Amino acid sequence: MKTVVIGSGSWGTALAQVLVDNGQDCIIWGKNHEEVNEIQNEHTIKKFFPDVQLNPQLQATADLSVVKDADVVLLSVPSIAIEEVCQSILPYLTKKIIVVNTAKGFHPGNNDRMSNVIRDCIPSDKLSSVVSLIGPSHAEEVVLRMLTTICAVSLNEADAMTIQHLFSNNYFRVYRGNDELGSELGVAVKNAIALASGVLAGLGYGDNTKAALITRGLAEMIRFGTAMGGRQETFMGLTGIGDLVVTCTSVHSRNFQAGYQIGKADDAQVFWQNNTKTVEGVRTAKVLYELKEQHQIDMPIVDEIYKVLYEGKKPSVSARDLMLRELKAEL
Amino acid sequence: MKTVVIGSGSWGTALAQVLVDNGQDCIIWGKNHEEVNEIQNEHTIKKFFPDVQLNPQLQATADLSVVKDADVVLLSVPSIAIEEVCQSILPYLTKKIIVVNTAKGFHPGNNDRMSNVIRDCIPSDKLSSVVSLIGPSHAEEVVLRMLTTICAVSLNEADAMTIQHLFSNNYFRVYRGNDELGSELGVAVKNAIALASGVLAGLGYGDNTKAALITRGLAEMIRFGTAMGGRQETFMGLTGIGDLVVTCTSVHSRNFQAGYQIGKADDAQVFWQNNTKTVEGVRTAKVLYELKEQHQIDMPIVDEIYKVLYEGKKPSVSARDLMLRELKAEL
Repeated sequence: MKTVVIGSGSWGTALAQVLVDNGQDCIIWGKNHEEVNEIQNEHTIKKFFPDVQLNPQLQATADLSVVKDADVVLLSVPSIAIEEVCQSILPYLTKKIIVVNTAKGFHPGNNDRMSNVIRDCIPSDKLSSVVSLIGPSHAEEVVLRMLTTICAVSLNEADAMTIQHLFSNNYFRVYRGNDELGSELGVAVKNAIALASGVLAGLGYGDNTKAALITRGLAEMIRFGTAMGGRQETFMGLTGIGDLVVTCTSVHSRNFQAGYQIGKADDAQVFWQNNTKTVEGVRTAKVLYELKEQHQIDMPIVDEIYKVLYEGKKPSVSARDLMLRELKAEL
Repeated sequence: MKTVVIGSGSWGTALAQVLVDNGQDCIIWGKNHEEVNEIQNEHTIKKFFPDVQLNPQLQATADLSVVKDADVVLLSVPSIAIEEVCQSILPYLTKKIIVVNTAKGFHPGNNDRMSNVIRDCIPSDKLSSVVSLIGPSHAEEVVLRMLTTICAVSLNEADAMTIQHLFSNNYFRVYRGNDELGSELGVAVKNAIALASGVLAGLGYGDNTKAALITRGLAEMIRFGTAMGGRQETFMGLTGIGDLVVTCTSVHSRNFQAGYQIGKADDAQVFWQNNTKTVEGVRTAKVLYELKEQHQIDMPIVDEIYKVLYEGKKPSVSARDLMLRELKAEL
């Protein structure tokens, strides 16, 4: 089987290395020629992993026609780019492929989740199914081959099994799931909660407060996720509490870091003026706010992070309002 | 109302300061004369909080007869000392008191939980009720007045409300609970899981692995807690996932630190030879192991931490066995 990884970012590179470590036929496609050449010739990607020597078997190309022989196409691009990438690979496809999604967010226009966006773009004669490969997994640790667990979630169990076997090895352990909606909503919601966790840390709140936020964030995730049709037990697993914990507590999380910067300045302007990276939680907070309003779901953490990001509310005021209000809810 | 805090350790001191901050009549009893004098005269307790100046109103004494006027007696001693402390205060009691328990463990002989131990010791004509004050709350942050949430859990709602109002202020927020069994088991189980989390960190595993452990640790807590009669929703709250997260991820946790030391040496002997502090998770692991065997509950994390602590199993082998075996269980 041949896998093409679309995206030469940190996660795409780390996942491609897992496949190469497994002896699989795999190549990265990137649009940035410098990055592609660096991976291909230097076996490094210093922008993301300054001190890491990648598996020298790792290949990269800037020629998108490479997807024409692919059996599996793994998309490692931000949520807002998923539709465009699907459209650009479509003309090259000659057979049915499995699309592996790793994005954790929503369509920028219709707020739909990633598997639906991909199915809308790629017709069923070219698409076996979508498998979302998601869970608590920082690229910075996977590239160092640190033990990581993740879920291959799909409505097509055979394809989920294919992806599970393709990626599994002694440091990268893949479990299967079939609650596509629940898992995709869980990993998206957690980015907004992680932003809030970063804001609290930036404001100077400690571990006791963070634990309270994670506890109430999980309750919010379950309330939202089950109202939208997900299964409660999904949110108790790797794509729920697992991903929530790793993102709220790890220095590797971009969402946490963006929130931290906002909390430190006690103002979201610092983020809007300086940010150049994709921080999924920022847009996710907006989508969740719209969806919770539409479906009348109580989500006070999302309310506050939305006000901080989009209505200029002072993070310190928001944090105080949130912690004073929401935490009454325990039992 | 007069409160006597039994125990001049870090948690007792931090909680007494909360009451003094609230203008309450409160005094610490400690058996260590040096510590008592330091609190009383220097308003410090440098052994635990080297850089903290305590509220100068904080009083301490080494005279146990101080409990004779108490309306509330807060026990801040290790689980193994709870019975002995109850017996020693009993002769001084002249009226019904509320006993506030903060210990998170089991009786050293009969493996009973703390509220039951206290009720067995203090007859009902001297005991209004037991209120357990438990949740995600490191003393190191409470003493700095960082925002903390905690639960007052009791079978007696009026007493829980009294304790809630006594302690609540703008940095220390107390919620009420009535699932005494579920809450007490939740906070006890989490100490054993936090030990395991520390072992993994000491062995060099990263945040991805920790997230997996917390996810499966919560599942184990729920399986055990509900089998023993606790309510599932309790484990989703501050005395379940909240306390689990803070203990597994914070440097302040003694259980995490003990595990870290064991993982670093890849041998539990280093702990047995050098430890001088109370590390509740060490004994809790043994109690949980006995209870799970007796009640036939599947608890693979507890199995492994027990083997590491009490059967000389190498932590690195245990970790590998655990992560390879248990994580198959997702969904």
